[in-house]
Amino acid sequence: MNRIYYPYSEFLIDIQTLVQKIDQKCDAILAISRGGLTLAHFLGEHYKIREVYAINTIGYEDTQKLESLKVFNIPDLTATKTVLIVDDIVDSGDTLIAVLEVLQSRFPDTVFLSSSIFYKSTAKIKPTWFVKEAKEWIDFFWSVDIKAE
Amino acid sequence: MNRIYYPYSEFLIDIQTLVQKIDQKCDAILAISRGGLTLAHFLGEHYKIREVYAINTIGYEDTQKLESLKVFNIPDLTATKTVLIVDDIVDSGDTLIAVLEVLQSRFPDTVFLSSSIFYKSTAKIKPTWFVKEAKEWIDFFWSVDIKAE
Repeated sequence: MNRIYYPYSEFLIDIQTLVQKIDQKCDAILAISRGGLTLAHFLGEHYKIREVYAINTIGYEDTQKLESLKVFNIPDLTATKTVLIVDDIVDSGDTLIAVLEVLQSRFPDTVFLSSSIFYKSTAKIKPTWFVKEAKEWIDFFWSVDIKAE
Repeated sequence: MNRIYYPYSEFLIDIQTLVQKIDQKCDAILAISRGGLTLAHFLGEHYKIREVYAINTIGYEDTQKLESLKVFNIPDLTATKTVLIVDDIVDSGDTLIAVLEVLQSRFPDTVFLSSSIFYKSTAKIKPTWFVKEAKEWIDFFWSVDIKAE
């Protein structure tokens, strides 16, 4: 698969596009760690939302050797009306689906919206808002801009 | 107070300096939200640590009108030996002190180290590792690089 470098300068342009698309008010931002952390930080600053949280997922093989996802470090969203879930890319969609399932079942009265920079058309779920379709492997600036020692 | 703009290009140089200073192995990275989120993301990528967590603090006035800090969304660190707490700046030191107190009391067997890009010499606590002293108000790139709509 081709790899493309995704620089900070392009990220800035894409965030502008994303915030133009996001047309609902959210009370909290929830980053899917690690990929969504930087985007969530910028969106929190942009919207002046201090409630920027993170959630973690880890893949493991269950007893039938199927890949499953464990979702952990779930923030308390009991008093939160609307949450914007943030990730860098919705690839297979498995992570976003697993996170949404856990959150919606634990917080049935909260509305969950989702956003990402990239989305693959083959994903099992489409985020509420995204900026561009991914057709290659993406080397994000946060992965490659720090040179190895 | 003078304001200085802190650009992404300088952040990259400072992270290189920071990872040269960090001379202990950590099992998890904990961002103090929001300020530490982007730095924690980059450090997680650099160290290939998937366990990048976030913690939240909020200031409030207690009954005696003193400013207090509530620490919430505390990740489960029971099985984690060494945690690197990450923030953008240690200013008064109040946030880092409050976070350390809560974490150390809840997870007495875990070692907590701390790092930031900036540190003010007037702070009540010094992070384990930091890059530079802050003498002005800092406009971080994540706060100002997205233009207001």
